[in-house]
Amino acid sequence: MKTSVAAMALALVLSLCLSLSFASRDVEEVGWRRGEEGRERWDEGRSSSEGGRPYHFGEESFREWTHSRHGQFKVLERFDHELLRGSVGDYRVACLDAAPRAFLQPSHYDADEVFYVKEGEGVLVVLRKGKRESFCVREGDVMVIPAGSIVYSANTHSSKWLRVVMLLNPVSTPGRFEEFFPVGGENPESFFSAFSDEVLQAAFNTRREEVVRVFERQSKGEISQASEEQIRELSRSCSRGGRGGGGGGSGSSSEEIKPTSLPSQKPRYSNNHGRLHMITGNECRHLRDLDMEVGIANITRGSMIAPKYSTRATKIAVVVEGSGYFEMACPHKSGSGRSSERRGEHGREEEGEEKKSRGYKQVRAQIKEGSVIVLPAGHPATFVAGNEGNLAVVCFGVGASNDEEVFLAGGNSLLKQLDTPAKTLLFGEQEREAADRVIGAQTESAFLRGPQQQRRGGGGGVSDM
Amino acid sequence: MKTSVAAMALALVLSLCLSLSFASRDVEEVGWRRGEEGRERWDEGRSSSEGGRPYHFGEESFREWTHSRHGQFKVLERFDHELLRGSVGDYRVACLDAAPRAFLQPSHYDADEVFYVKEGEGVLVVLRKGKRESFCVREGDVMVIPAGSIVYSANTHSSKWLRVVMLLNPVSTPGRFEEFFPVGGENPESFFSAFSDEVLQAAFNTRREEVVRVFERQSKGEISQASEEQIRELSRSCSRGGRGGGGGGSGSSSEEIKPTSLPSQKPRYSNNHGRLHMITGNECRHLRDLDMEVGIANITRGSMIAPKYSTRATKIAVVVEGSGYFEMACPHKSGSGRSSERRGEHGREEEGEEKKSRGYKQVRAQIKEGSVIVLPAGHPATFVAGNEGNLAVVCFGVGASNDEEVFLAGGNSLLKQLDTPAKTLLFGEQEREAADRVIGAQTESAFLRGPQQQRRGGGGGVSDM
Amino acid sequence: MKTSVAAMALALVLSLCLSLSFASRDVEEVGWRRGEEGRERWDEGRSSSEGGRPYHFGEESFREWTHSRHGQFKVLERFDHELLRGSVGDYRVACLDAAPRAFLQPSHYDADEVFYVKEGEGVLVVLRKGKRESFCVREGDVMVIPAGSIVYSANTHSSKWLRVVMLLNPVSTPGRFEEFFPVGGENPESFFSAFSDEVLQAAFNTRREEVVRVFERQSKGEISQASEEQIRELSRSCSRGGRGGGGGGSGSSSEEIKPTSLPSQKPRYSNNHGRLHMITGNECRHLRDLDMEVGIANITRGSMIAPKYSTRATKIAVVVEGSGYFEMACPHKSGSGRSSERRGEHGREEEGEEKKSRGYKQVRAQIKEGSVIVLPAGHPATFVAGNEGNLAVVCFGVGASNDEEVFLAGGNSLLKQLDTPAKTLLFGEQEREAADRVIGAQTESAFLRGPQQQRRGGGGGVSDM
Repeated sequence: MKTSVAAMALALVLSLCLSLSFASRDVEEVGWRRGEEGRERWDEGRSSSEGGRPYHFGEESFREWTHSRHGQFKVLERFDHELLRGSVGDYRVACLDAAPRAFLQPSHYDADEVFYVKEGEGVLVVLRKGKRESFCVREGDVMVIPAGSIVYSANTHSSKWLRVVMLLNPVSTPGRFEEFFPVGGENPESFFSAFSDEVLQAAFNTRREEVVRVFERQSKGEISQASEEQIRELSRSCSRGGRGGGGGGSGSSSEEIKPTSLPSQKPRYSNNHGRLHMITGNECRHLRDLDMEVGIANITRGSMIAPKYSTRATKIAVVVEGSGYFEMACPHKSGSGRSSERRGEHGREEEGEEKKSRGYKQVRAQIKEGSVIVLPAGHPATFVAGNEGNLAVVCFGVGASNDEEVFLAGGNSLLKQLDTPAKTLLFGEQEREAADRVIGAQTESAFLRGPQQQRRGGGGGVSDM
Repeated sequence: MKTSVAAMALALVLSLCLSLSFASRDVEEVGWRRGEEGRERWDEGRSSSEGGRPYHFGEESFREWTHSRHGQFKVLERFDHELLRGSVGDYRVACLDAAPRAFLQPSHYDADEVFYVKEGEGVLVVLRKGKRESFCVREGDVMVIPAGSIVYSANTHSSKWLRVVMLLNPVSTPGRFEEFFPVGGENPESFFSAFSDEVLQAAFNTRREEVVRVFERQSKGEISQASEEQIRELSRSCSRGGRGGGGGGSGSSSEEIKPTSLPSQKPRYSNNHGRLHMITGNECRHLRDLDMEVGIANITRGSMIAPKYSTRATKIAVVVEGSGYFEMACPHKSGSGRSSERRGEHGREEEGEEKKSRGYKQVRAQIKEGSVIVLPAGHPATFVAGNEGNLAVVCFGVGASNDEEVFLAGGNSLLKQLDTPAKTLLFGEQEREAADRVIGAQTESAFLRGPQQQRRGGGGGVSDM
Repeated sequence: MKTSVAAMALALVLSLCLSLSFASRDVEEVGWRRGEEGRERWDEGRSSSEGGRPYHFGEESFREWTHSRHGQFKVLERFDHELLRGSVGDYRVACLDAAPRAFLQPSHYDADEVFYVKEGEGVLVVLRKGKRESFCVREGDVMVIPAGSIVYSANTHSSKWLRVVMLLNPVSTPGRFEEFFPVGGENPESFFSAFSDEVLQAAFNTRREEVVRVFERQSKGEISQASEEQIRELSRSCSRGGRGGGGGGSGSSSEEIKPTSLPSQKPRYSNNHGRLHMITGNECRHLRDLDMEVGIANITRGSMIAPKYSTRATKIAVVVEGSGYFEMACPHKSGSGRSSERRGEHGREEEGEEKKSRGYKQVRAQIKEGSVIVLPAGHPATFVAGNEGNLAVVCFGVGASNDEEVFLAGGNSLLKQLDTPAKTLLFGEQEREAADRVIGAQTESAFLRGPQQQRRGGGGGVSDM
């Protein structure tokens, strides 16, 4: 009996203490664990694969910030895993889908916005520096909207949806941004509703009731619908911002903003397996100020990108069309003998810290439209397009200045630069020729015939040797 | 009886476990909780108000680092709240008050110092780059002192106090700085006292006793008093540093430093309700290097600033004269239905992270001389002067490059840029005129007639409509 | 008996709760505590000394990442103490020792590498921007290798070891870097082993077996040995990269990289007690991009550096030759009355945060080849060479732009700039002459006769007075 008393005590103790420890875990690891559940759905269950986490995010990792029959705005969870925080933790990814003739209320973010028009067409009105500018945007356009600009926009098409993918760079709190609506009602509210009546009355030199009626009683909601007529009016003055800008930078980044068509940039690489278009700080002063670049890789169905890594930039990749999979070599996640021993010796800190691996683990996940993948600098990775159709991936490069792409296979593989003595040392006399064959066998560059094609193609390539 | 044994056990258990959890809370939240107590004193108790925390800091949030009858130096607690850390957490605010003819011992900080002379006059001697420069400073002067400069100074007035407000940018540990005194005694000590006798003797090529006597036995204290005669001598060679500097930047920031008078800058906005003076990176190379700007808003008694926000800069505002109150719209703090549901669903992480609010909460606090307010980028806010006298607020802008002020009411309101189709969509045909009236009713810009004046003035403005 | 039951319960409770609290300490303080054990070995046990922690790291703070009879690569623990994290926490220190004719496998880091050749000679082959460059490096050389460059190298000497000290600036995860090997076997693995067979086969357009044989079956290990012949071949084309570079910067940092001899730079200070050589952003564009500088202080046996501090840069000092000790004045660690009271009042946060000390504690440690010392900006410090031989210390300066060295004793002491009125105020009329004597007694600059020499020398200096 006495023991049962002690038992009771202990039970309670355990629950108490454990609750404490779990409490703290929640805070730290929610992101990770949520990822887990969700991404499992993408997992192929291959032992080598963990569904690509923490580098891959599926649809379930997005949160809806607003949703109506006229459209939705959803934001990806923060990059708060310890392996991502330092490189991309300050940024956020978001997607906007607007129904035909949808109108988006005026608002500003406390974040810079870099967006890519995935689908459709629209008009974008930007209020900044005391003036108004209207821009026509269409599929393939990239545009930077500086933090604090008041923006309203509309889908100008009467039957197609307008879909936009964006990267946000918060300016007040890293990794967090908020949206501010001057005009609202139930939801969204107007930020004026946070000011006292006497302040509003004085500010607008108008009776309180009037101010409230005008700013705080509009209940069309964040995304409403405009008439054909209204759309025409909104688009009337809109421009492609032809006036200079971009490249010929004046040093001041107060210079005009404008949409730039990504696909109409001269491709950096192109063949019948795919092509890569980029806009960098050289083409767009605002991207330079943000130390960012934007690119799109269009990979032909069944083809792939040659394994490569970026020397400095961490890439945030968003699949905008098609499906397929990606593979990345990740030393952090290695389960190689030595690193686990170390883990053994020194406990948790080692895990996080000292896991120096001489081995690599495969990070792999099936991807489809809406998937987000983070590719840290230096990590070799590849994308393979599925057989249903082309795979299009938009890459936002963060920390892009002086960045360089290093290809590890194909005609422009950096490994072709190995000199003879090095190859002799690495492969030995007898193996050296084999090595030269392997390094030389792939004649295409950047975009290559994919695995399926190989097999189907009876390895035409293989017979080259 | 047995139960009482278990009870005893459990009581102790609880206290143990709780003490643990509190221990950790102390570390994280001391700033917040201390704020609470203190700031409550400012709270008006309106349900919408929480005394402005975590954005408002009253006198009680300062700590005295030194205090004597000749003056005091006090430092504001760190900006360690999660909403502030990312934007201003690396900086510190401090105030110095020096009695007539007070002399401040030579010392250097491991921080850049940007100061504003709130009141009085003084002489400042700066030792850097191997030479000595003396500067006369007076009320309204702004000056940047690069980290590591050895500085000593004196209040040159025989009856008035010298009061200085400063923002510090620590260079070795973010959010922390220390002061180093070469000459001292009991308190402050000389940093030479931390070196061993043999090292000191060798360094100065002098007998230990001599070195100690000279550097470590001066007990006048950090702030002492000088004679009329000594003040005259100290000020003899002091200059206003007329030689160029500032604007005509040579690219090198090694160029001279000098005080610049803030009030004598051409006002950016000015009317009989107030005026705003600014010094930016364009006027001062050292501010540019720090990505900062400094401004002062003088608001006429009873008047107000039009609600506005900064697009990029987070403003650290210090009230240097008068009293009144501020209001700010803050989405982070919204209690709106949807965000709380979310909180419900996903637990704490959501709270911190996903609290996407389509509603805003009022942040409001009474302010007076010595109050410090943080205004994050993008957050609409206003200041209202009390009826006793003018309100003067010094604003240190952090992350200032490409910053822009956006006014939301008055003659220069950005909302005036809304085009007709947008207004029709927002307000509907019938409401549009009302909207135009409201947006147009306030004819003043930047500084406006305040709430009290409105009422007293019988709403002359209102009758304008 | 009942009590014993309660006792049992409580005992278990205690252990549970404590285990929790310790668990968390492990995570936070492992670095600190590990340091403790190890550094104790350097501790002199003087009450004022704590073995220099957390600013001093002995050999035991390094971890071996690879080790064979041909050489080793070891990495210093992270700078994760709260006092260091903010200034140098993103960087890592590493040492490489390569046996005669050792060959190091090709690999790239996700970090920029700044290295100093401590001993020996070698050839370094760098693959970047699609081409290959070979460099001959020798003792005293400094070179920057941009992140993502594929590098292989060899010790070109047939009997001497090649020893290199490096600072790494991780580009993907602050404070963490990984090494990526294209060719490997058991250990290191090839990162290609993380890609699926079908991907490899497609990428190389070659049968899986071939690819695996070439890239994943090389078991010479990370550091192997080359023949005289192979070394000759490797070095054949190697250059000192004579072609311009460095100083005459084109603004683009894509310009060539090359080794620069530190000792052959015009010494910044030099006398028979020692000399200081520096390479800054002015000499090397890549260092400017990293906001770094590299210097070496050669201190004659028994001599010392005059006490000094850096105004902006935090210095990471690595002893590359000889032994001796360092002393630093540190306010953070002061145990002075007032700050401890504060600690009393407000608990732990105060300790970390508000410990405003008007007193300083001595940080002191014996140092020898391999010791690493962090000198935060603004902290006065000195190095003293032992009597066995010269002391050579390589300093990597982080945050170096606009940095300035401030000497506190000797011919170039900034204190000599104190003007007469200040000295009168500080020391009083009667003491002023003594002060002038003390400040003037040391006629040497930067490098001075050391303590032992003083005593042995019968204080020749002292008799100067």
